[in-house]
Amino acid sequence: MTTKSAPDSKRRSERSRHAIYDAAIELVSEVGYGKLTIEAIAARAGVGKQTIYRWWPSKGAVLLDAFLDLGKQASLEASDEAGRAPEYEIPDTGDLEADLKYVVRASIDEFKNPKYDAPYRALAAEGMLNDEIGAEYVEKLLEPSLQLYVRRLRIAQEAGQVRPDVDPRVALELWTGPLAQRWLQRTGPLTHEYGDQLVEYALYGIAPR
Amino acid sequence: MTTKSAPDSKRRSERSRHAIYDAAIELVSEVGYGKLTIEAIAARAGVGKQTIYRWWPSKGAVLLDAFLDLGKQASLEASDEAGRAPEYEIPDTGDLEADLKYVVRASIDEFKNPKYDAPYRALAAEGMLNDEIGAEYVEKLLEPSLQLYVRRLRIAQEAGQVRPDVDPRVALELWTGPLAQRWLQRTGPLTHEYGDQLVEYALYGIAPR
Repeated sequence: MTTKSAPDSKRRSERSRHAIYDAAIELVSEVGYGKLTIEAIAARAGVGKQTIYRWWPSKGAVLLDAFLDLGKQASLEASDEAGRAPEYEIPDTGDLEADLKYVVRASIDEFKNPKYDAPYRALAAEGMLNDEIGAEYVEKLLEPSLQLYVRRLRIAQEAGQVRPDVDPRVALELWTGPLAQRWLQRTGPLTHEYGDQLVEYALYGIAPR
Repeated sequence: MTTKSAPDSKRRSERSRHAIYDAAIELVSEVGYGKLTIEAIAARAGVGKQTIYRWWPSKGAVLLDAFLDLGKQASLEASDEAGRAPEYEIPDTGDLEADLKYVVRASIDEFKNPKYDAPYRALAAEGMLNDEIGAEYVEKLLEPSLQLYVRRLRIAQEAGQVRPDVDPRVALELWTGPLAQRWLQRTGPLTHEYGDQLVEYALYGIAPR
């Protein structure tokens, strides 16, 4: 292969890669993760199955990379002309309760996005069955989003709105844990009202003040 | 088959059933749920694979019934001579914080039981991929254990230890949600100290009092 053709080849393989991600995400919604095969992903993406096996060891690994790529694409789209991605942070209006409710409601809306609900839940399930995928899922997808709450809670602590002895990394789980469980295990309705309740209970406690 | 032999046959099939449950639970720990096959369960249990297919449509269905049976056995073992199973309830010493911490610590110890950790997490994952198994898992295994907290929180409300406007079914998720997430997704250490923190934050809130 000549040096001249290298950029073309790179563009082609980038194109294949995205076709594979799209195919994997669509097919989980259509046939279910249990019935998803590398063959079906390859056929939908218009590539040979060897192309997929060359890059990924399993369908779970394809799905994980598909979601990591979605995050990267969103960040690229939001970049300015110099290619700087915005630092996403939870809003700080000075009203902690309102800011948390706002972000929790937005998360609930995202959980319910029909395009990603089944594939994202399948990825979480695969992460529970496969330690390697689980560890990468938590480190690269889940934890960075939880750290946004850590930073917002630290600001609130400095402002005297959260007790100084509270560990922000634990505190955020008072709402993110229940949200994850209702979303992943379908243990109850996932509504804005429910999200608001969680934030209120977490901030003020369930014991009388 | 004569009427006389029916009880024998019933005992035999009860024995096969339990051998199948034990085999399924052991094999998930040994080979992982992904590699678990009906053939391997049958071989370990000493039954033909058709015996398993006659009773269950999938390995996930075997695992669900294995855990439902474990619950039934525990309740039988605790029964009195007249066969009455004790009504399990969360202790009520009058000190809500102490009672919740006691039960949360016991749950954390159970989560870490090496015999059941991998198979129970596999069942939860399967429930996220298979709606039928998920619904039965939540209805028959998860929700009954959550209802114990509902009853204890109602007693606390009557005693004025929980605000009257709090919904106990939501409140209990402040600790059960985070525990489930750390256990299922390995998002952080699952220690008694962590359990205590969750109970304290949930009762008194993270905002200054």
